[in-house]
Amino acid sequence: MDYVYGPGRNHLFVPGPVNIPEQVLRAMNRNNEDYRSPAIPAMTKTLLEDVKKIFKTTTGTPFLIPTTGTGAWESALTNTLSPGDRIVSFLIGQFSLLWIDQQQRLNFNVDVVESEWGRGADLDILESKLASDTAHTIKAICIVHNETATGVTNNLATVRKILDAYQHPALLLVDGVSSICALDFRMDEWRVDVALTGSQKALSLPTGLGIVCASAKALEASKTAKSVRVFFDWNDYLKFYKLGTYWPYTPSIQLLYGLRAALDLIFEEGLDDVILRHNRLGTATRLAVKAWGLKNCTQKEEWYSDTVTAVVVPPYIDSSEIVKRAWKRYNLSLGLGLNKVAGKVFRIGHLGHLNELQLLGCLAGVEMILKDVGYPVKLGSGVAAASAYLQNNIPLIPSRI
Amino acid sequence: MDYVYGPGRNHLFVPGPVNIPEQVLRAMNRNNEDYRSPAIPAMTKTLLEDVKKIFKTTTGTPFLIPTTGTGAWESALTNTLSPGDRIVSFLIGQFSLLWIDQQQRLNFNVDVVESEWGRGADLDILESKLASDTAHTIKAICIVHNETATGVTNNLATVRKILDAYQHPALLLVDGVSSICALDFRMDEWRVDVALTGSQKALSLPTGLGIVCASAKALEASKTAKSVRVFFDWNDYLKFYKLGTYWPYTPSIQLLYGLRAALDLIFEEGLDDVILRHNRLGTATRLAVKAWGLKNCTQKEEWYSDTVTAVVVPPYIDSSEIVKRAWKRYNLSLGLGLNKVAGKVFRIGHLGHLNELQLLGCLAGVEMILKDVGYPVKLGSGVAAASAYLQNNIPLIPSRI
Amino acid sequence: MDYVYGPGRNHLFVPGPVNIPEQVLRAMNRNNEDYRSPAIPAMTKTLLEDVKKIFKTTTGTPFLIPTTGTGAWESALTNTLSPGDRIVSFLIGQFSLLWIDQQQRLNFNVDVVESEWGRGADLDILESKLASDTAHTIKAICIVHNETATGVTNNLATVRKILDAYQHPALLLVDGVSSICALDFRMDEWRVDVALTGSQKALSLPTGLGIVCASAKALEASKTAKSVRVFFDWNDYLKFYKLGTYWPYTPSIQLLYGLRAALDLIFEEGLDDVILRHNRLGTATRLAVKAWGLKNCTQKEEWYSDTVTAVVVPPYIDSSEIVKRAWKRYNLSLGLGLNKVAGKVFRIGHLGHLNELQLLGCLAGVEMILKDVGYPVKLGSGVAAASAYLQNNIPLIPSRI
Amino acid sequence: MDYVYGPGRNHLFVPGPVNIPEQVLRAMNRNNEDYRSPAIPAMTKTLLEDVKKIFKTTTGTPFLIPTTGTGAWESALTNTLSPGDRIVSFLIGQFSLLWIDQQQRLNFNVDVVESEWGRGADLDILESKLASDTAHTIKAICIVHNETATGVTNNLATVRKILDAYQHPALLLVDGVSSICALDFRMDEWRVDVALTGSQKALSLPTGLGIVCASAKALEASKTAKSVRVFFDWNDYLKFYKLGTYWPYTPSIQLLYGLRAALDLIFEEGLDDVILRHNRLGTATRLAVKAWGLKNCTQKEEWYSDTVTAVVVPPYIDSSEIVKRAWKRYNLSLGLGLNKVAGKVFRIGHLGHLNELQLLGCLAGVEMILKDVGYPVKLGSGVAAASAYLQNNIPLIPSRI
Repeated sequence: MDYVYGPGRNHLFVPGPVNIPEQVLRAMNRNNEDYRSPAIPAMTKTLLEDVKKIFKTTTGTPFLIPTTGTGAWESALTNTLSPGDRIVSFLIGQFSLLWIDQQQRLNFNVDVVESEWGRGADLDILESKLASDTAHTIKAICIVHNETATGVTNNLATVRKILDAYQHPALLLVDGVSSICALDFRMDEWRVDVALTGSQKALSLPTGLGIVCASAKALEASKTAKSVRVFFDWNDYLKFYKLGTYWPYTPSIQLLYGLRAALDLIFEEGLDDVILRHNRLGTATRLAVKAWGLKNCTQKEEWYSDTVTAVVVPPYIDSSEIVKRAWKRYNLSLGLGLNKVAGKVFRIGHLGHLNELQLLGCLAGVEMILKDVGYPVKLGSGVAAASAYLQNNIPLIPSRI
Repeated sequence: MDYVYGPGRNHLFVPGPVNIPEQVLRAMNRNNEDYRSPAIPAMTKTLLEDVKKIFKTTTGTPFLIPTTGTGAWESALTNTLSPGDRIVSFLIGQFSLLWIDQQQRLNFNVDVVESEWGRGADLDILESKLASDTAHTIKAICIVHNETATGVTNNLATVRKILDAYQHPALLLVDGVSSICALDFRMDEWRVDVALTGSQKALSLPTGLGIVCASAKALEASKTAKSVRVFFDWNDYLKFYKLGTYWPYTPSIQLLYGLRAALDLIFEEGLDDVILRHNRLGTATRLAVKAWGLKNCTQKEEWYSDTVTAVVVPPYIDSSEIVKRAWKRYNLSLGLGLNKVAGKVFRIGHLGHLNELQLLGCLAGVEMILKDVGYPVKLGSGVAAASAYLQNNIPLIPSRI
Repeated sequence: MDYVYGPGRNHLFVPGPVNIPEQVLRAMNRNNEDYRSPAIPAMTKTLLEDVKKIFKTTTGTPFLIPTTGTGAWESALTNTLSPGDRIVSFLIGQFSLLWIDQQQRLNFNVDVVESEWGRGADLDILESKLASDTAHTIKAICIVHNETATGVTNNLATVRKILDAYQHPALLLVDGVSSICALDFRMDEWRVDVALTGSQKALSLPTGLGIVCASAKALEASKTAKSVRVFFDWNDYLKFYKLGTYWPYTPSIQLLYGLRAALDLIFEEGLDDVILRHNRLGTATRLAVKAWGLKNCTQKEEWYSDTVTAVVVPPYIDSSEIVKRAWKRYNLSLGLGLNKVAGKVFRIGHLGHLNELQLLGCLAGVEMILKDVGYPVKLGSGVAAASAYLQNNIPLIPSRI
Repeated sequence: MDYVYGPGRNHLFVPGPVNIPEQVLRAMNRNNEDYRSPAIPAMTKTLLEDVKKIFKTTTGTPFLIPTTGTGAWESALTNTLSPGDRIVSFLIGQFSLLWIDQQQRLNFNVDVVESEWGRGADLDILESKLASDTAHTIKAICIVHNETATGVTNNLATVRKILDAYQHPALLLVDGVSSICALDFRMDEWRVDVALTGSQKALSLPTGLGIVCASAKALEASKTAKSVRVFFDWNDYLKFYKLGTYWPYTPSIQLLYGLRAALDLIFEEGLDDVILRHNRLGTATRLAVKAWGLKNCTQKEEWYSDTVTAVVVPPYIDSSEIVKRAWKRYNLSLGLGLNKVAGKVFRIGHLGHLNELQLLGCLAGVEMILKDVGYPVKLGSGVAAASAYLQNNIPLIPSRI
């Protein structure tokens, strides 16, 4: 039952799904339970309360939907918007592209703002669109916090500032799939209206939970939104929240206990320390890329992503060969370049339950692979650059001092 | 992390989620993996091939959707039908009611055929509707194979016969949530167009997979169906099937390995022997109910369900007290009466990974609870009746002969 | 990797190894760790403190030895006695026989006091031996608290009274393998000098820990005991206790975490409530045996065991056929009759992580098997008798009230 | 229940216990079973057959004893020797010292041949002792194949040659605890009489199985060996082997299934390829040590160990600070220097289920720690040296080609 066994542990450095902590695997190692017993609602109540913390919201309403990120997108859109509604949406890579594709198929009027892949959302254009939209025809701004395909982090604080500058009432819908629990995300402060993530990303769970959080304004919008929805309808959840039974349909018992464990670990480490750890991992990776003499797909420092780094390879190398070789020879899983950057970049995911020595093992592997495929890397150079930084920055583990 | 601990094993007799075999728990006890590596598509291919067997189809196309039964319903409807389409749908209990509610909210024109709860679908009315529908305005027949709320199994072979008698082209959409892998279900023979189940039912997995199988005719219908859909769109799957990468979005690695293990166990026991085992469990339960002097909610033998038995309690007893007491005193999880039969019935689920002695332990528990709540049951009577039948009918375990 | 698969859950009713709680399986589902890190000694310290509670001792010194019950026996003997030492030892069944065999092979002078199998230790003979031993040649009394082969519980309080009556200084060494954590055992009150159990018995863990507890008098004896020992030498443990590193050789990390979880569950339920639960399970089983018209191998009520019942079958039945049939047809594991009672008794183990409905499932199974092999049992009779008692005696689950 | 949590995965580089493959954890994640059912003997039979392969013997008789390496030592000695027997035993580090201590406490006449720690067994002295022992007073040669404390591998082929040269009949007893399944070990070819290992070493299981293999000559010796033994007595095993029930006392069901999985993985990779992988890991580690400008505790290349490297630190550094810091800051577990080399060396274990990138992560960590403690290491230097070698030597993973 194990396909393509390789000795030792698989080095999982795709930007999701990510490594699951043993504590979470343990919590999920259990038989099914009756979700209508008093136990599951009692636990669900704590989960809904605690999950708000990862969004940094006290006023939002969370939904734990048995779906993936794609379903969470759909939930965000169909509950707040009506067919034909005008949306401003930023295309900056494969995942924003897929979301836009969904928006179009759901019959919204999508005003696409495209950037070169490797650049962030063009907020100047946003500004001009808002400026000219005195009639408030724009109903929502859709933006990925972190574009997983290119390793670009958008500046949501600025988006909020622009919206505020024009006192524009558009909803702010944010894909936080590869950011929440890893990057600094502030739902309340930035007045995000819908934020969402998937369990298999920085929460370090298996796939299966689309975690969506709605502001009061988003909930209000859902009362008049005419998009057809049933499975993804927030109202069904809200009805059961009121009843205190919480679930309109069967949840995964295992994922609930897993989420409990995942949140406990995050709170034990401290969410802000988790975010700092991701910053260390991202910085170290970028230093290695630089030491190798390679380019980061992300064009400016302001967009650098602490959860994924897309590395540009020289034109004479096919980046998919690097990914293949990583898997075939080193038991290392790297991310492919997708769509426009296929063959041109490979991606190192550095999010979730991961520490610095795991990353250094990966970087050492990438160096060997680069050499394998004919790139004249100096072995050890990336590790040295990353280590020099890390050795000055890794804190002691608090529980072990 | 364990809420409301009770000594010994929980006796899980709700009609889903059901007991997970240790083999499946083991298979799922694993870290995440890159689903774009060659390993996952290779496994997916075998899963898609093998999952067809539980539908008894060779020509159907299966979809393993990261969702629940409710999502599988939506997938079946939105991929084959257009808003306004006329559907004949049978209301015979809470789950058919919920499906009908979904059908209405998805803007179909639902022609509801209601039966008294405890009776099967009224096929005479179906016949008259088809007879008068010479214009073929009816686009689909929606029917639950087994109504989980009342323990009623509909006769799908007869549905097919009636459709054929009138040479009616309506699609036949079947909810097999509490039937497939437990009751005799024959997709190809009955020319079912869409059949669906959820992983947490007779497959004995955690919740999280909506398993949908579409006939060629259903796939054809999907080409013109105008219902808006993205997450549930079969086309996205079909596109990735062709690419050989299989997944339009991230699957749960754990559920894939779990499904592999679950199918392997079912095939090792033999699907027909699994169905026979469910028949033994159902028969034994019904004999016990009769011995207790209680009524089966199911009004006629032809509708008896081998996966769940809804037991009618005397008017002076509140059936929800039985369910509460089962949980509070005996670590036994029974199903509540829902909606119209709330307080009037309790339900014994006897599906999935379950054997006869487990059931007898449950029946012994129910006897004590009946006495607890003031019903003058003769202790041991139900167990005796069930045992007398089982002792003559349990086969030797083939691997142990 | 699963041999001889049968559908549904195996009903494990041998008197050990017993069912492991899911909580314990989860706790053990982990990678190895460095046992010389600060974490393992910290945990070990709590384990050594808490494990004393299951012996009801505050003054004893516990040892968690990576071995089985047989090794724990050897540890008890070799640390306290010298070759040639006179021991009074009671032979009342297969396990006391095996211990005596060990005592003889370790070159002690074993004064065997034999009882008919099914009877308890003959304490009159003990009394007469002590009375005549004014020279105190008897160095130790070796006795099983509960003889697993016959389901006989000896009265240790009386043993202590007799020793005290003669002010005899002999050490009191007790095999508590099938008693501790299930029967009322009071190390301090009865001044037991060495008590021992194995992890796979009422603690409900996998096999692998021999848990031995020594009184101050036993530790004193160990200073002069001349039996050769290294692996089992308490001194090596005591040396590492002093160092605070606790382990003279590598422990099983998994069993340590498992023991932590097992103790936590026992303390959550309450040790005295655990003992009461075993009394209910034992009583219910005996009532069933009586209702079946069969004899308990245990000849008098004073020796009834609440952890295992040996059931005598009529002469025309081979009890091993019952055990075989249980396994081959009902996925039920019963205990064989051993040695003198081979073919004559089968055993129902009812210890460890087990509740009443599990037991009733087993009893229902035994009824069918009895009928299978030609014994004219009235189906349901045993379950009825057990249920009538249990329905009046099962408490509510405290955490669920 | 998790002590001293640190983010990400613990990097386990002590020379045992080692990392357990997920496949093995899965196999062990199971309830207890009746070990007297037909299933367990059937599995045991395959285990006994297959475990011989890791010793490279076809004629040996294996014993799977529920104990640790210390117990396996005792089993090897007490089954083959009598008190007073003369043994030649080599003291080259802490583990050979502990074995010698055991030999002395078991009352053998131990002729200790000491080497400086960091050197191998002095085979010249062996030769001279054998030469002068024409009376064959030496009954056994006891030698560790690999001294875990210093990272020294002894040359067993030479030991055999010397014994043969003098046609000396002494038994050859080998501690293979940190060698078997990792280093080239050839029981039959070298005519080793007793070889032994522990499950938590290169087999990559939890602690709990002492695996001992005896030659025909050793079995013959056991018939007359007068050392007192019961728990460790091979005869009890041999008796149950003949009966086909295999177990004189309760085995750990979980470890048996775990052993099955561990052997399957080793055979899938190929034992010789496993050994080659260890050679790569050892070589890479030594190259890193050299690049750091540090000394290997092992004094000559002929003794280099492929399972553990003891690294000598400069006099101004306390090696235990390195180990502490590794754990406190980097979630890295290294081995302490023991006894004579305490404070002077730290140890990197590189055995068991481990691959090259895991090792490189560890080496990168060691570099940072060396810097932390004031050693002027060039960051990246060790990783570069190791990578340069590995990049030329890692084979493709056969299942993935």
